[in-house]
Amino acid sequence: MSDHLIIFDTTMRDGEQSPGASMSKDDKLRIARQLERMRVDVIEAGFAAASPGDFESIKAIAEVIKDSTICSLSRANENDIRRAGEAIKPANRGRVHTFIATSPIHMQMKLRMEPEQVIEQAVKAVQWARQYTDDVEFSPEDAGRSEPDFLCRVLEAVINAGARTVNIADTVGYNIPHVWGALFKTLRERVPNADKAVWSTHCHNDLGLAVANSLSAVLNGARQVECTINGLGERAGNASLEEIVMAVRTRKDLFPVETRIDATQIVPSSRLVSQITGYVVQPNKAVVGANAFAHESGIHQDGVLKHRETYEIMRAEDVGWNANKLSLGKLSGRNAFKTKLAELGIDVASEEQLNAAFARFKELADKKREIFDEDIQALMSDEAVGPEVEHYKLVSTMFHSETGELPQAKLTLSAGGTECRAESSGSGPVDAAFKAIETVANSGTELLLYSVNAITTGTDAQGEVTVRLAKSGRVVNGMGADTDIVVASAKAYLNALNKLQSVHERINPQL
Amino acid sequence: MSDHLIIFDTTMRDGEQSPGASMSKDDKLRIARQLERMRVDVIEAGFAAASPGDFESIKAIAEVIKDSTICSLSRANENDIRRAGEAIKPANRGRVHTFIATSPIHMQMKLRMEPEQVIEQAVKAVQWARQYTDDVEFSPEDAGRSEPDFLCRVLEAVINAGARTVNIADTVGYNIPHVWGALFKTLRERVPNADKAVWSTHCHNDLGLAVANSLSAVLNGARQVECTINGLGERAGNASLEEIVMAVRTRKDLFPVETRIDATQIVPSSRLVSQITGYVVQPNKAVVGANAFAHESGIHQDGVLKHRETYEIMRAEDVGWNANKLSLGKLSGRNAFKTKLAELGIDVASEEQLNAAFARFKELADKKREIFDEDIQALMSDEAVGPEVEHYKLVSTMFHSETGELPQAKLTLSAGGTECRAESSGSGPVDAAFKAIETVANSGTELLLYSVNAITTGTDAQGEVTVRLAKSGRVVNGMGADTDIVVASAKAYLNALNKLQSVHERINPQL
Repeated sequence: MSDHLIIFDTTMRDGEQSPGASMSKDDKLRIARQLERMRVDVIEAGFAAASPGDFESIKAIAEVIKDSTICSLSRANENDIRRAGEAIKPANRGRVHTFIATSPIHMQMKLRMEPEQVIEQAVKAVQWARQYTDDVEFSPEDAGRSEPDFLCRVLEAVINAGARTVNIADTVGYNIPHVWGALFKTLRERVPNADKAVWSTHCHNDLGLAVANSLSAVLNGARQVECTINGLGERAGNASLEEIVMAVRTRKDLFPVETRIDATQIVPSSRLVSQITGYVVQPNKAVVGANAFAHESGIHQDGVLKHRETYEIMRAEDVGWNANKLSLGKLSGRNAFKTKLAELGIDVASEEQLNAAFARFKELADKKREIFDEDIQALMSDEAVGPEVEHYKLVSTMFHSETGELPQAKLTLSAGGTECRAESSGSGPVDAAFKAIETVANSGTELLLYSVNAITTGTDAQGEVTVRLAKSGRVVNGMGADTDIVVASAKAYLNALNKLQSVHERINPQL
Repeated sequence: MSDHLIIFDTTMRDGEQSPGASMSKDDKLRIARQLERMRVDVIEAGFAAASPGDFESIKAIAEVIKDSTICSLSRANENDIRRAGEAIKPANRGRVHTFIATSPIHMQMKLRMEPEQVIEQAVKAVQWARQYTDDVEFSPEDAGRSEPDFLCRVLEAVINAGARTVNIADTVGYNIPHVWGALFKTLRERVPNADKAVWSTHCHNDLGLAVANSLSAVLNGARQVECTINGLGERAGNASLEEIVMAVRTRKDLFPVETRIDATQIVPSSRLVSQITGYVVQPNKAVVGANAFAHESGIHQDGVLKHRETYEIMRAEDVGWNANKLSLGKLSGRNAFKTKLAELGIDVASEEQLNAAFARFKELADKKREIFDEDIQALMSDEAVGPEVEHYKLVSTMFHSETGELPQAKLTLSAGGTECRAESSGSGPVDAAFKAIETVANSGTELLLYSVNAITTGTDAQGEVTVRLAKSGRVVNGMGADTDIVVASAKAYLNALNKLQSVHERINPQL
């Protein structure tokens, strides 16, 4: 009998800490629905005390998601834990995940607490959390640099206090597999009540070893893996959910565990997170990269052609790679559109929003022969920004470029409800569009990153543009999709400016 | 005393087997120079018998590169080995890397040989190769599915025959670290003359474990790692050179080995390979991803700010991340340009080519305020396609798009020396440009992938467009760079069409 391996997704908490990857409540709801569809065990939906927006997002997810456990992170203080407890209250199953630093440097410099005080605080935090839910997780922050004896004492104390899960994090991605596995072995041997809790591993990818370290922990008794879709996360990211799940499944001869993940939802999840955060997946990424299952031509020309299946350790269709699914066409009506949205798990708040989305769909169908699921998703991502935060809107555009002349852009924008014209030349039409927008916005931002990906194949595909802007240390990603790449770029730039107006400082714990 | 770990780069052989990543001779020369600058020990420059182009590329590299060993792959037959031996002849140090399948399924289905015949052929191959060089490497193809006793017999025989390096490949990326390490331990214990050869590991990344498996092999006696820049390679790619090098260096407390790699050349190498192959690197890629060393704002606001260095397991500057280096400006002359090219390791074949490149540089400097090293590299990548294979050329362009109207493209192309006009509308200006080109080319190709990345930051940056086209099972990547994204797209499309005309079938060994 295999043990159950708990898949704990932190795309919306640790993943969101990636530069510019902050998500709106609607974004998070869409991701949560997709994670539930994939049968993720635990969804860490955010950090309730970080901001009112975080709190509202977690609460909204807790109200809607029925199958997965909904978790909020919280520091080890009464206020944080109350906020977390309240946010997860509507959930069928809610978890509070509390943490406190246990390394000498953190205890001294950040907490200004003695080790004994830290143990006391950790125990209190777990007890507070238990008032809201029986499902409490505890993480010693900066465990990697903590003194091992002290770490064992903390873990024993929090398990006694009622923590059901204890999570060990390789925060700076410094470990290598056999050492990380040995740490789990030692801790589980030395903590007297180790068998009273589920052991969890949380790994970062700075040396490219997050997945290998997580798997080594599993071989040494960990039964929960904290991971993110596409390995999203600060710096080089977290362990990739898709690689963990497929490694354990493909090598069930070696791993004594099973997940309950519906692997056919892996690629749709990957695409959705990539679309919402603007983080592209490289073609040579395992499992979810565009090439992961592609072979260069010529390879199958030898005698092994007939035995191709023996080369395949996974099948593309098992992780949700399909031919693009033809979705709707020019003649599809409002009802078909509504049904498709429901099928894709996209919620529309009001009839007005549906009407606006349907109008945009018709516009797209005029320009593009075949509308795929991905097109609808991009369309709705564009729609997802509610009017309340949409200060700038693109009304109309005109671009002209010709060899030997400077490209020109003439735009009509709506800025806070007022229409204004903007015009500029530039080194290319995109540069001209951005400069034209800046004649109105004067944002003083810096463009850090610009990238475009076609959403589907074919020359009439929509381009999805990501624009990363920075201003006074704040970073946002703006996204825009359109069959016209220059229009998509202008939309993405405005989306980023709109986000900059609503982004606020947040606390990013070092887990 | 640490052992020396040999870094064997196969970006230009196994990496080139990625769909569309085929490289011209000039591309390969530029990459080889960069690899030499990074102090790679062995450069696998190609597969000499695969095509005359491969042969010429390896030979050209062998003539130019003085510091790294130049290696050609070859099957275990006399003709292949002669071609490999001739190609590497000009090198200061040349290696022949020969392989033969040792798994029952391959021996039976592909080779139609008995096991004893395979051993005999392997020994002969090593002996033939030794006529050209003392430095011979042998790989048992499909080692993972080979019968262990037989594998040991083959390895013993080839080492006796004079193979200095034996390379074990996890071809389908099926292994996990502790199993892969154990295999090396067993093989090295069981092969009687194991100490007479260097053991090498070659891992694929299908489960995201190529780097971890390679490192586990190193902990069990491997002293050569075969890897590629950016982890380029078929499907999910090969082990990443940059992750291997930085893991071994960062954890020198755990690894009893040292490389001679100049790590500050890692990021320039990553960019060059990405630029030449059109394979983007995702932001959350370890070491070379754009975010690998970036922190979300707000993270350093706590008391640990002053101790930030203790969080850093690597420093960005150690792997070659620098602020974009201002390179040249509008007023830079022909000599400054020439000097810069030499500094970047870019060779210009003739005065005409230099003049053409300089003219394009001046054109770019008119449009773009600051010219960075990356801009020059993109400019020269654009130039790299020699006129002999450039059937289609872009002469001039006109684009117009306006809300409510179909975007229009009017192009003047040169097709085989004849100028012709082409014009089309489309769903966006890029679609219009591609459709206009197709009115002339009628290529019957399918567009598989379209992506754009800005080469540097700032709104006037050049966009670098990758277009992947497929026709009758052949796949090519076209690249184009320009400050005008639509012009860059048209260039990339034409570049792909030009490549399709010169690409030929090739043999892709399963290593």
